[in-house]
Amino acid sequence: METRIKSVLKCIRCGDETELYGAKNFTCHCGGLYDVCHYGLNLNRSILRDFDERAAMNSSSTLSQSGVWRFHELVMPSLSVSDIVSLGEGIMPFWQAGNNLREWVGGDLDLWIMPEGLTPTGSFKDFGGTVAISVAKKSGVKAIICASTGDTSAMAAAYAAKAGIACAVVLPKGKITDVQMAQPIAHGARVILIPGNFDACMKIVGELVAAERASPINSINPARIEGHQATVFLANQFFGWQMPDVFVVPVGNGSNSSSVGKGMRLMLDNGLAGKLAKLIGVQSEAANPLASSWELVQTNGSVAGAGVWSKVYKKKTDLGDTTATAALIGNPVSYEKVMREIVASRGAVLTAAEQDLNKAVLVAGSDGHFVCPQTGTALAGLRQSVQRGLVKRGQRVVVISTATGLKFPHVPVLYGKNLVTEARTCETGEVADIIGV
Amino acid sequence: METRIKSVLKCIRCGDETELYGAKNFTCHCGGLYDVCHYGLNLNRSILRDFDERAAMNSSSTLSQSGVWRFHELVMPSLSVSDIVSLGEGIMPFWQAGNNLREWVGGDLDLWIMPEGLTPTGSFKDFGGTVAISVAKKSGVKAIICASTGDTSAMAAAYAAKAGIACAVVLPKGKITDVQMAQPIAHGARVILIPGNFDACMKIVGELVAAERASPINSINPARIEGHQATVFLANQFFGWQMPDVFVVPVGNGSNSSSVGKGMRLMLDNGLAGKLAKLIGVQSEAANPLASSWELVQTNGSVAGAGVWSKVYKKKTDLGDTTATAALIGNPVSYEKVMREIVASRGAVLTAAEQDLNKAVLVAGSDGHFVCPQTGTALAGLRQSVQRGLVKRGQRVVVISTATGLKFPHVPVLYGKNLVTEARTCETGEVADIIGV
Repeated sequence: METRIKSVLKCIRCGDETELYGAKNFTCHCGGLYDVCHYGLNLNRSILRDFDERAAMNSSSTLSQSGVWRFHELVMPSLSVSDIVSLGEGIMPFWQAGNNLREWVGGDLDLWIMPEGLTPTGSFKDFGGTVAISVAKKSGVKAIICASTGDTSAMAAAYAAKAGIACAVVLPKGKITDVQMAQPIAHGARVILIPGNFDACMKIVGELVAAERASPINSINPARIEGHQATVFLANQFFGWQMPDVFVVPVGNGSNSSSVGKGMRLMLDNGLAGKLAKLIGVQSEAANPLASSWELVQTNGSVAGAGVWSKVYKKKTDLGDTTATAALIGNPVSYEKVMREIVASRGAVLTAAEQDLNKAVLVAGSDGHFVCPQTGTALAGLRQSVQRGLVKRGQRVVVISTATGLKFPHVPVLYGKNLVTEARTCETGEVADIIGV
Repeated sequence: METRIKSVLKCIRCGDETELYGAKNFTCHCGGLYDVCHYGLNLNRSILRDFDERAAMNSSSTLSQSGVWRFHELVMPSLSVSDIVSLGEGIMPFWQAGNNLREWVGGDLDLWIMPEGLTPTGSFKDFGGTVAISVAKKSGVKAIICASTGDTSAMAAAYAAKAGIACAVVLPKGKITDVQMAQPIAHGARVILIPGNFDACMKIVGELVAAERASPINSINPARIEGHQATVFLANQFFGWQMPDVFVVPVGNGSNSSSVGKGMRLMLDNGLAGKLAKLIGVQSEAANPLASSWELVQTNGSVAGAGVWSKVYKKKTDLGDTTATAALIGNPVSYEKVMREIVASRGAVLTAAEQDLNKAVLVAGSDGHFVCPQTGTALAGLRQSVQRGLVKRGQRVVVISTATGLKFPHVPVLYGKNLVTEARTCETGEVADIIGV
């Protein structure tokens, strides 16, 4: 199938196109973002049987051992299977929400969590990373670079290692934790500490990318979006090829929410789904440029077009404090794509209060599900959606959990203090009294 | 099927039996450990077809959404499916070792890693936890207790939350990290800090268990062993119902290695496998009571019986320093079971040098696989096995990776310092020179 298909980068502003393979700088001459588009795709519902066959975990084939490449024809059909660089991403269970969370959210929902933190590097970034690095390798990229302090650098280093591509991570000296250092180092990336802040790191990375001396792996790389679409395909498959009613996604740079929207449209346009789900993006109050502008452009309960919205949109420069640091972004790279998908799906972008998003982490935890504060943001936004009538009673809702709680241990320690008791003595009787046994 | 089967606890020393369900104190009157045994099992190879059908990730059934309960008839056939308490454990890819690791290990092996850290709580403990907590719930247990600072308390808290059973964790005040506190708190466990050391915590837990005021979830609970057997079943299934040649397992308290051995014998005894794999346990030099005694009881290249071995065995009281802290145990609870399985499989228990086990973490990482230092212990032991001729050229070897590297970020930070460079300036040119682009 691969040889008949041609993949291009198409600017979402001016419509100009360029080849995908070989591209090193992912910004159009007009300054617009690129979409990946495929010519020669010829999909029909018979492909769903192939996807189901590949969902067998007793198979060692490349397409079975990845929850992203299981949907090869949808995520990157122009790439040969032998060119795939995979670490086994997207092989994970679906979590049905427990009683504590269902009660807290309200609305008697058919509520599910996709734990995308149960992936090789511990965050949803692996879904996009496997596609972006596979394309980079096929394109002959020799070095990739990034300035992320968190999930992106971890993903970049791991997949670059697997591909045999050099990876460099530029970080601000004295401003990062051991945990943030650990993953790039573990995967053999070069870590360069500079005597400046994070913006200085970004400036260096931007200049090296502009000069085409290293390839970017951050959100601007549109091949990542293609992989993140697998979230939608996995959910539809899990529910017997039925689209859920609602997807809820935390919004940072916007790659995940725009991918969910794009994946839904891909399914609908090719007859693989009968409808779009409502896409609800959620931001913390510390960094909510999309949510605050969305509130301004609603007309009669339905959001105005993306064109109107983008005129109202303003980046947020005065960022607040939040535990959801992975989404603490005042000017999301993919904001135009997010708007496009929210409008297309008649969705919403909401703001979660700081106390609510942290509370949500503990509520999910009390059902046995340890999630990150960004997932807490999504859960708090869902609760608000129920209260505002954006989500209806009994609907099937899928919440994307973007990282494992293990990357954010301070949240339960800070907000769950009431569970900790200091005994005065080492007597068994005192401990038994505290526990109540 | 369930109703015809009776499960009992059978002492491995004196052979006395007692009911499994309802048991609250898992030590025989003679002081021996219990095995779980089932009466009425009637297995044949037709069950393998059922296991293969359940390996479909597009099914939402309980038996498909768990890599442990997929093998229901083998892990706990007397428990009804409706009594299962699962968080979706054991849904994970198989990692084929990369070129860097294969070269470092040597022997041109067909080498695989099972990343059991890609589970809900981030360690292999979930395999046993789902079975132990399911049995506890069925037994009417109201409260479980433990004193682990690490993976066991995380597992206990998560599965108890899912089951609606109270959980208490007793920890030494001032001697634990935020990460160690985070998981029990996240799952709503009561955390009691006492003004004593870890031994004082264990003493309190032991007294509450002996008085049957709370149920133990530590290694003494033999239901855990049953769940860990799934490692063997998953591997056999992945290779088309062929037993690998070798399993390599890090040994702490011994629950994992004894489970792998028991699972292999269960398959062989019921005609589900044609042979046993060689079981190689590996300990760090900081805590190697089984390895050092194993070296003493070899005769003509083959280990003596477990009876001889246990006479030579001595607990290690002077523990050393190691990054593999999760296996820093001088007197493994399950040491007799480990000996039984090592002898039965004609295996070995080896000691990995501290520098080698940390080196192994970085070598696996350089292929894109971030593993914990206990996994590093296993990998270093495998390398030694190749050099000593215990593992033959080209054999199919499966290494159990017991936890995600995310729980041990200090290892790459400490041992990968050579990858970190401090730039003198924030100039792009200097960074480009450092990277070499």
